[in-house]
Amino acid sequence: MEKINHIRLSEDDNALIILDQTQLPNREEYLELKTPEEMYRAIKRLEVRGAPAIGIFAGLAMYVLARGFSHLPYPDFRAKFNETADYLNSSRPTAVNLSWALRRVKRVVDDSSALSPADILPLLKNEAQAILEEDVAMCRAISEHGLSLLKDGDGVLTHCNAGPIATSRYGTGLGPLILGAERGMYLRAYSDETRPLLQGARLTSWELMRAGVDVTLICDNMASAVMKEGLVQFCFVGCDRVAANGDTANKIGTSGVAILAKHYGIPFYVLGPSSTIDLSAKTGEDIKIELRDPDEIRSLWYAEPMAPEGVKCYNPAFDVTDHSLITGIITEKGIVTPPYTHNLAAIFE
Amino acid sequence: MEKINHIRLSEDDNALIILDQTQLPNREEYLELKTPEEMYRAIKRLEVRGAPAIGIFAGLAMYVLARGFSHLPYPDFRAKFNETADYLNSSRPTAVNLSWALRRVKRVVDDSSALSPADILPLLKNEAQAILEEDVAMCRAISEHGLSLLKDGDGVLTHCNAGPIATSRYGTGLGPLILGAERGMYLRAYSDETRPLLQGARLTSWELMRAGVDVTLICDNMASAVMKEGLVQFCFVGCDRVAANGDTANKIGTSGVAILAKHYGIPFYVLGPSSTIDLSAKTGEDIKIELRDPDEIRSLWYAEPMAPEGVKCYNPAFDVTDHSLITGIITEKGIVTPPYTHNLAAIFE
Repeated sequence: MEKINHIRLSEDDNALIILDQTQLPNREEYLELKTPEEMYRAIKRLEVRGAPAIGIFAGLAMYVLARGFSHLPYPDFRAKFNETADYLNSSRPTAVNLSWALRRVKRVVDDSSALSPADILPLLKNEAQAILEEDVAMCRAISEHGLSLLKDGDGVLTHCNAGPIATSRYGTGLGPLILGAERGMYLRAYSDETRPLLQGARLTSWELMRAGVDVTLICDNMASAVMKEGLVQFCFVGCDRVAANGDTANKIGTSGVAILAKHYGIPFYVLGPSSTIDLSAKTGEDIKIELRDPDEIRSLWYAEPMAPEGVKCYNPAFDVTDHSLITGIITEKGIVTPPYTHNLAAIFE
Repeated sequence: MEKINHIRLSEDDNALIILDQTQLPNREEYLELKTPEEMYRAIKRLEVRGAPAIGIFAGLAMYVLARGFSHLPYPDFRAKFNETADYLNSSRPTAVNLSWALRRVKRVVDDSSALSPADILPLLKNEAQAILEEDVAMCRAISEHGLSLLKDGDGVLTHCNAGPIATSRYGTGLGPLILGAERGMYLRAYSDETRPLLQGARLTSWELMRAGVDVTLICDNMASAVMKEGLVQFCFVGCDRVAANGDTANKIGTSGVAILAKHYGIPFYVLGPSSTIDLSAKTGEDIKIELRDPDEIRSLWYAEPMAPEGVKCYNPAFDVTDHSLITGIITEKGIVTPPYTHNLAAIFE
């Protein structure tokens, strides 16, 4: 079992070293990033991806970059810091965790006008590491709650990627499997390849192999056969947004997995930080689903197109899993079960 | 709307002209086959595929080849004919329709010892065309029965490929859509891409576009979203084998579609010739499922592998759809509804 240290400072703190996720699963390459342009590009090109991972990256990136201009007097340092942060923020304007993390490190600079920039640097490093460590703690808590359901030998089906490289460590949907493996448990995972972007094939199966979990890759349409044969005892998936009534938006295909699980009597759990619960969305109807480029289905990845030129495609990025299909929602605060409208609201009280 | 004439004699009967299915959907290329070696290769390389289509191909191929040695005296002609048929038969030993069609044309030669080989040729041509025409009639009957369920504007979800190029014309699962389009009906199809071999993307969507059906390609995991949004009123799929109780083996993923359809209250129909009903198999338990090469999931089609080297894969070719999920089974003889054990047996009485 190997720990993936996918976002880290160089030994001299002059660079940020990241696993280049675009090269997975064929090459495990690390990039050494030193300039704002290299860091901008890393986010833009999805060399680093996953909402929590981008936030962690941004915090550490600002610390590394601030070292390069900490000789400036405070007002100039602060201006340069904010300008650089805004530049990084423009790399993926819709990434909530990116702007959230940048606001956190900006606040450190704003609140330190009495200090010299050189003395602000350790505070920035602390803040960046706090973002990372808070995420580790949150993922670990989610993983512990999920793992409490599993026993040695259990099989878990998962869809898309909710693993360590999208977060800090452990991940959310994959967290219980990885934490279990770390403790020497024998767990079996079935990873849906997750068309069209193949996150399950490219990322999830790579992460689980690395973590020492016994993982088997399947095509999405094989989940029914795997369940029928009794190969899995649980389904664990991540989530992009959970409505107040428990309806859950996650990668396209998640709702299908939940319906199959219900049919075969297999418990289906959603795992994610409590920050993905959006009480302002009453039900899944309030969650807008992004439609993506048809070429992701027709031709992306392939040596030549796999569908007729000009064929119409329907390519929703997410779907909504009805709360009635969800056995439990696992956050860092514990396992929430129905009735969700009451029990989800309660965790924020 | 264009008719696909995918297996036909050349004008002078000296060659068999076939659509090269391995080039779809990127190139619509026809091959002119004259020698036994070319014909053997066409079957072996899946340039012609689909059980009924292979049978039709074999009948016409033997007629074309027999013309080349019809100058021989009958005993030599017959020996050469049988030798050539056995050679073609060895191209795909498990293809039932191949050996069945070859037996039919061999019988014509066996029964014609009183005739000169030159006079046998027209009988061979008749027999080969009879195989073709019987298949057209069967597909048309299945299509008529299926079409009786549809009204203008209906949406139909299909999985894998059960269309004209696997048969003679119309196909089975796609037959109602193609016959409806031929009659000027407006029908909408949703075609599952059908991983790992992508028959839905490569073949079904190509066939439906050619037939003038309004087709939309989706990834397998999008079927749940399409059903939830009310885009389809029916599911039509083909079948590889139907057990006496109605349990149906078909391309992997079919059972998942059926479970989703049941969840959303959408009728799910299986379409195929009555010859695919195997009363000797009591239930789906008696149908053995072929496990295929993991590289079909990991790397086939892709510019580079899409899964980690050495990752375990589970790659069943088929699955069994429980009879309780099937609204009706449509053969050339009509629409059979539950109870299947009684009603399927009845069509053979």
